[in-house]
Amino acid sequence: MYTCSRLYVSRLATISAIRGACPAGGCMMSMCCDHRVMSSVGSIGLNEVQLGIPVPKYWGLLMAKLIGAKAADKLLLTGKLISPAEAKALGMVDQVVDKGQVLEAAEKVMAQLVKVPGGAVKATKISLREDFCSAWQKYYVEEPRMAWALLNSPETLRTLEAALQRLSSGNKGGQSNGRPAQPAARM
Amino acid sequence: MYTCSRLYVSRLATISAIRGACPAGGCMMSMCCDHRVMSSVGSIGLNEVQLGIPVPKYWGLLMAKLIGAKAADKLLLTGKLISPAEAKALGMVDQVVDKGQVLEAAEKVMAQLVKVPGGAVKATKISLREDFCSAWQKYYVEEPRMAWALLNSPETLRTLEAALQRLSSGNKGGQSNGRPAQPAARM
Amino acid sequence: MYTCSRLYVSRLATISAIRGACPAGGCMMSMCCDHRVMSSVGSIGLNEVQLGIPVPKYWGLLMAKLIGAKAADKLLLTGKLISPAEAKALGMVDQVVDKGQVLEAAEKVMAQLVKVPGGAVKATKISLREDFCSAWQKYYVEEPRMAWALLNSPETLRTLEAALQRLSSGNKGGQSNGRPAQPAARM
Repeated sequence: MYTCSRLYVSRLATISAIRGACPAGGCMMSMCCDHRVMSSVGSIGLNEVQLGIPVPKYWGLLMAKLIGAKAADKLLLTGKLISPAEAKALGMVDQVVDKGQVLEAAEKVMAQLVKVPGGAVKATKISLREDFCSAWQKYYVEEPRMAWALLNSPETLRTLEAALQRLSSGNKGGQSNGRPAQPAARM
Repeated sequence: MYTCSRLYVSRLATISAIRGACPAGGCMMSMCCDHRVMSSVGSIGLNEVQLGIPVPKYWGLLMAKLIGAKAADKLLLTGKLISPAEAKALGMVDQVVDKGQVLEAAEKVMAQLVKVPGGAVKATKISLREDFCSAWQKYYVEEPRMAWALLNSPETLRTLEAALQRLSSGNKGGQSNGRPAQPAARM
Repeated sequence: MYTCSRLYVSRLATISAIRGACPAGGCMMSMCCDHRVMSSVGSIGLNEVQLGIPVPKYWGLLMAKLIGAKAADKLLLTGKLISPAEAKALGMVDQVVDKGQVLEAAEKVMAQLVKVPGGAVKATKISLREDFCSAWQKYYVEEPRMAWALLNSPETLRTLEAALQRLSSGNKGGQSNGRPAQPAARM
């Protein structure tokens, strides 16, 4: 996770090329980038609560920064994975393209980004994100303690076991075409 | 008000079913919930400044969290109450339904919310909201001092008196159909 | 710059009437106001990085407050100036009118704003903005040190020199009709 907050203030231009399913940690890594290109078939989100696991604090706050606190709350408290079209509408991804075009589209944007004077971009990115990152990094000490207690609670273990059973039985097909293994609560 | 910041991080799923007019404190309580259902006739907002009273700091900041700082500024600095349709468009409420359907709609959402693993939702909600709440609770000490001075200023007393006179004369009918007693400044 | 954070919490109602090009410092001053009216021909934004200069931290954070962190990131990291229509769509300005109507439109809004009880508005505005302003003012001490180093870096000097040459050759016409002198990277 330390890597992630560093990715978020990287001096490099960062683009996430997302092909297919992008739940949990994958979603978080993509949110640390400057730009997100996603294939038109897939799903994205922080679906932790559906597995009985809490969303890590700064992953949730990062989503709130990206799409607004209200929209993030809705998704995070239900563990809903969303479609590429919904992700585009919410501003979670910047572009949705055909599966075969993901890398090409990302490279096209990168070609534009690297034209902007690098030193100025780097300093601006740090200005905009350093306060968030330093709070995130401070939290590294506290986080494992709370997370460990929660991961070992009987409710979490029960929910995780059920989720693993679902995944190892018939639902793999559902996931490979980009849909979440478990339909999330709708609101 | 202590109750409100506790409501905002309640371990329970919280839904606000709003029938008709929902100004000031009612609006704030509803903003502390996870989901808001509102009747199609009514009004909602923090209209304090129209009564010559400042919006309590964390009520205003909570609205800014919910609908964005810019939209909140506009509403709060003019004391405008908005219609259910406007509230839906701004993301201040999640659903608008016929007056008779409010409770039923709320129960339907609740039935979905309670299906999500409770421990994970509770921990996630606390992560997302604890920083806001602890700043809010710290402010309890400072708030009454400033508020008392403002409530006793001659300008506030004059405005409040005029508002009370308006309310006790002909404007009650206007309010029972959900419109604010006093039209707010338009921008 | 001290002036700007004071403008942002001014006890007066503040309106920015924008005619034509509004880059960098002009954009920032307008973001400190309560309302922005812009002419239909023009451009607005913080285009610092296009000149090889970083966006001052609290200018960037103020834009993030106004139009959301994600939209602000996109504009600031590419130094893009946007059209009045784009600015309206993003919520960067509140109204777009014909060039000849800018002042008249601003006065019309002001006539509404001054009707709202002043003491309550003032206290509410301070509540909503004081935390941001006090962080901004604290940063005044640190800012010049970092800015000075960056402004004197060889890359910045090269980029600025090229920009000045562009401006002093053929591009003045382009700017007088409200378009940025240098097309920003598109994303």
